[in-house]
Amino acid sequence: MKAGLLMVGNELVDGTVRDVNASFIARELEPAGWEVSSILLVGDDAAAVKAGIEYLTVLSDALIVAGGLGPTVDDITAAAVAETFGLPLERNEEVLERLKERFAAFRIPWTENNAKQACFPRGAEVSDNPAGTAAGFYLRRGKKIIVVVPGVPREVRKMVPEGVLPVLEKEFPGKRTRKTRKTLKVFGLSEARVDEMISRAGPFPHLSIGFYPHFPETHLVLIAEGADEKEAASRMERGEQVIREVLRPFIFGADDETLESVAARLLTTKGLTLAVAESFTGGLITDRLTDVPGSSLFLDRGIVSYSNEAKVDLLGVPREVIMRKGAVSRETAELMARGARERSRTDLGISTTGIAGPSGGSEEKPVGTVYLCLADAERVLCRKANFRWGRRGIKEMSAALVLDMIRRYLTGEKVCDE
Amino acid sequence: MKAGLLMVGNELVDGTVRDVNASFIARELEPAGWEVSSILLVGDDAAAVKAGIEYLTVLSDALIVAGGLGPTVDDITAAAVAETFGLPLERNEEVLERLKERFAAFRIPWTENNAKQACFPRGAEVSDNPAGTAAGFYLRRGKKIIVVVPGVPREVRKMVPEGVLPVLEKEFPGKRTRKTRKTLKVFGLSEARVDEMISRAGPFPHLSIGFYPHFPETHLVLIAEGADEKEAASRMERGEQVIREVLRPFIFGADDETLESVAARLLTTKGLTLAVAESFTGGLITDRLTDVPGSSLFLDRGIVSYSNEAKVDLLGVPREVIMRKGAVSRETAELMARGARERSRTDLGISTTGIAGPSGGSEEKPVGTVYLCLADAERVLCRKANFRWGRRGIKEMSAALVLDMIRRYLTGEKVCDE
Repeated sequence: MKAGLLMVGNELVDGTVRDVNASFIARELEPAGWEVSSILLVGDDAAAVKAGIEYLTVLSDALIVAGGLGPTVDDITAAAVAETFGLPLERNEEVLERLKERFAAFRIPWTENNAKQACFPRGAEVSDNPAGTAAGFYLRRGKKIIVVVPGVPREVRKMVPEGVLPVLEKEFPGKRTRKTRKTLKVFGLSEARVDEMISRAGPFPHLSIGFYPHFPETHLVLIAEGADEKEAASRMERGEQVIREVLRPFIFGADDETLESVAARLLTTKGLTLAVAESFTGGLITDRLTDVPGSSLFLDRGIVSYSNEAKVDLLGVPREVIMRKGAVSRETAELMARGARERSRTDLGISTTGIAGPSGGSEEKPVGTVYLCLADAERVLCRKANFRWGRRGIKEMSAALVLDMIRRYLTGEKVCDE
Repeated sequence: MKAGLLMVGNELVDGTVRDVNASFIARELEPAGWEVSSILLVGDDAAAVKAGIEYLTVLSDALIVAGGLGPTVDDITAAAVAETFGLPLERNEEVLERLKERFAAFRIPWTENNAKQACFPRGAEVSDNPAGTAAGFYLRRGKKIIVVVPGVPREVRKMVPEGVLPVLEKEFPGKRTRKTRKTLKVFGLSEARVDEMISRAGPFPHLSIGFYPHFPETHLVLIAEGADEKEAASRMERGEQVIREVLRPFIFGADDETLESVAARLLTTKGLTLAVAESFTGGLITDRLTDVPGSSLFLDRGIVSYSNEAKVDLLGVPREVIMRKGAVSRETAELMARGARERSRTDLGISTTGIAGPSGGSEEKPVGTVYLCLADAERVLCRKANFRWGRRGIKEMSAALVLDMIRRYLTGEKVCDE
């Protein structure tokens, strides 16, 4: 079954914002056996909406339209749909009543232009909007169906699973193949290298595998297909097992997991505490760790020791080491990790020091030279790297590498070459 | 003049990635007097590409196609364009030579499938690709023009200004209106409030004003139109002046400026130094400040004092204040800002303490309660707020508010109500 998507809004075509709804809708439709063939973005222009509807209904069994259902003069989607199919617009008194009640409940003064949101093409079935004021609707035309929802991303995220998918299920009943999707997240291998390792392990029947760089990670999107959900799920399971085997130490999580959520879970489960000393990463590591609810259970403190004074005062790095070896050196990095751990009496200490650029590099230590360390009671594990991205890229790659060092340390994988 | 955009790639329609090229291209075309009427995304499917080209060429004077020019079997754009217009594909020996040289220079073994990237529809003009291997090309069909470029975003960002715009300029010479665009960035006012304030100050002839929420900021996109660049620029200048007057203390910057780049510029210009003590913001403020090149000139250190011990040890907040008033209290926040400043001997000290949730709230201090302070030699300025977003939203809004407090402090605007 093929679906077409039509996104309506001037801001989508004039370069002001990037559409976020179409990719969300495509991902939601896929497990239900729908393939998106074309996505069309048009401005708030009745002729363009009409032309788009005509074009996409020829190519698809179902058309999902999002946007242009608000109360202002710009909002022309309902009228354009009605015109395309030669239907009059009719006011739905029940919807109008509900709208007015909603306005009263939120103490927003009612203005007559809002009545527009209660007008639909004749014959349309109206669907509630649990997240906003504008209701959606759908129309049958021959064997095809046109579903219209508001364009606010928050509303789309609620209405598509709750309103659109049930309609498609009802209107297109009967057997068709089912799909299931899983994202495996890889850190520390290039896309090309992942591709090569997977190819050697394959083939994987009934499983499509996509590789997507997600700097600084690589994501593998697995899509398994089967006659029903059970078959799709079991094919997914078999494929996933082989892939996890092949890429073992490099897969850090799946789907919604992040490097920080995995590190946080491991630290919390093992009841370990952490102190972080960051130089050039500037707080990015603690920022990511504190995005995880409950991070106060393991994170004692972070030190952004940007100046040499801060490294001396707060981490006890001897001034002569900084002078002799440099603030960006293995020795300083080791002493920072150790100092963070000892001064905060935590189980683990983490440190970063490096040159994020654009200036500050030298021949011996070019921009992108970084030292990253993890200290426990017995030893300090360090990685040195030379990264070639810009300032933000060097920070992001280094923060990710440190989070991954924590994961590897806590799962018994190799942290560094020593 | 109307342009249509056709973006080709399976990953764009199956929900795996969001297209980033179309909005970039639309923004680039606009100042040259081009309006994008429709954007169509299709998979790597010759029939869909062909149907898309036919649809969009009817609606537009120029069609820009991006994607599907690589060496693999998936890459079908050149062949589909040729087929649409009934043209044979021909190999361009000059391009082939250059391709082979490029491979040799990068020591990549040449494989025969790469020759595909030297094949173009008969009559096409070939354009160099300064950023990658696949060359672009363009075709004239009657009064219309079809320009094809590779889909890699990095390459699009180079080829559109360097390859596509000059072609459009050459092929569609003559007078047309010119546009200029400027983004004014607002912090601390809702979109509705900005809209209301601007409406009262208007009308603004020849200036279109769009309002775009960019959490936690609101961006105003101004587009001025004129017979030539000079007229467009002078209309922009006049409109901008009025708008800046109306919104004065809330506009923090324009175009590429960020809250952190503005704060950094002001600190550097005034030769002031800063220490930051963050609790629930977890390092986000120093992360943002250290994204600005040269931040070591003003940033001495950051302390992520997540635990009470860290607040006592590193900032000298008396334990009994934390016990009596709470870690999340005005008193603790003030002492943190003062402690950060005094202990690091900087000109200014900044602090944040709050409850980011999801747990940890109480009736008296619900989730979202935050205290944000700025200390100088004489006083501590504080803001208390109650935010209602999720954990990340509360962190982001608070970090932005602190950066804006620095800007307001350094430009003599009101920082808080006291």
